[in-house]
Amino acid sequence: MIKLYHAPLTRSIRVVWLLEELGIPYQLETRDYRPSPTPFAQPTPFGKLPALEDGETVMFESGAIVEYVLERYGQGRLAPRPGEPGRGTFLQWLHFAEATLMPPLVEIFRHTMLKPEAERIPAVVADGRARAAVTLNVVEQALRGRDYLLGEDFSAADVMMGYGMKMAEQFGLLHELPNLKAYVQRLNARPALQRAMGAK
Amino acid sequence: MIKLYHAPLTRSIRVVWLLEELGIPYQLETRDYRPSPTPFAQPTPFGKLPALEDGETVMFESGAIVEYVLERYGQGRLAPRPGEPGRGTFLQWLHFAEATLMPPLVEIFRHTMLKPEAERIPAVVADGRARAAVTLNVVEQALRGRDYLLGEDFSAADVMMGYGMKMAEQFGLLHELPNLKAYVQRLNARPALQRAMGAK
Repeated sequence: MIKLYHAPLTRSIRVVWLLEELGIPYQLETRDYRPSPTPFAQPTPFGKLPALEDGETVMFESGAIVEYVLERYGQGRLAPRPGEPGRGTFLQWLHFAEATLMPPLVEIFRHTMLKPEAERIPAVVADGRARAAVTLNVVEQALRGRDYLLGEDFSAADVMMGYGMKMAEQFGLLHELPNLKAYVQRLNARPALQRAMGAK
Repeated sequence: MIKLYHAPLTRSIRVVWLLEELGIPYQLETRDYRPSPTPFAQPTPFGKLPALEDGETVMFESGAIVEYVLERYGQGRLAPRPGEPGRGTFLQWLHFAEATLMPPLVEIFRHTMLKPEAERIPAVVADGRARAAVTLNVVEQALRGRDYLLGEDFSAADVMMGYGMKMAEQFGLLHELPNLKAYVQRLNARPALQRAMGAK
């Protein structure tokens, strides 16, 4: 059975959420998140959260785990198959959700919550908010007239994006972005996300 | 034919390099990189570099484009197929190369080169160097006794990782990491990378 190293509020929520959406059994190895200024400090394989063990496969990186689970157990659900229309857009948002959306949010987190107060730099937070605003507006426009990133159908790209959007909402960055606010509400209504948020 | 929006020294090198490795014809739309403190400021579709057009598909995010090209034109080259041994590790390094390796390098770049001198914050550079050091050491250990991330066989994960490693080398971060220095030399010796570095 899949073993998933998990801590509440971390990116491992993405994987729990996906597994819940797909109805795949898994065993949670819940750990306390260790605040650290440098990465690879978590009490898991590789020092990262999430980490996954599945037979011979041991791996980290939430986006990679999401792809692995889809390929191995998705049976074509929650993603266009390679070669199908929308596959490129699916891959784009799947990567964007970590590679482009998260860095400014992480800088805000580091300089408002993670670092000791004396080391927090307001200019870094302002810079992160400016970058996040531009990035969030791109998704706001992409969601015009759509329920989900690919249109009517919820996909694993929404699982990847949802984590960052909930973080952006917590930081007060969605106030003037009605499509994103409605999107987060739509995601929050999904029972699989609710179960993932309560996973211990 | 694939149309690729490209600028020298940007992440579009990854895609040119991959296309050259695979021998896939493409048309370059070369643009001047526009230095900007906020993202989505480039003169391309979506405002991002790289961006790809291929028939109905128009997309950005270098990691996503690499996956798209592999799926569509790779014919099983440069990546384990889904379900094969090493697939999870391949996906892990493919995502890691942007999601984990690049953020501290980008912070160093922003605060040593991109921002006006008056806005550069030395503490951000020091923080980026500390995070990068931990992250680079993880790859240093992973490459012990290996030529490439997956072992003997070069893969598209090395294409993704190579871009960041060349940046880390430029920032003087590889001095005490012999496996990574040898790895970058090995990558630099590939004709496809040399052609990508000269692409205009």
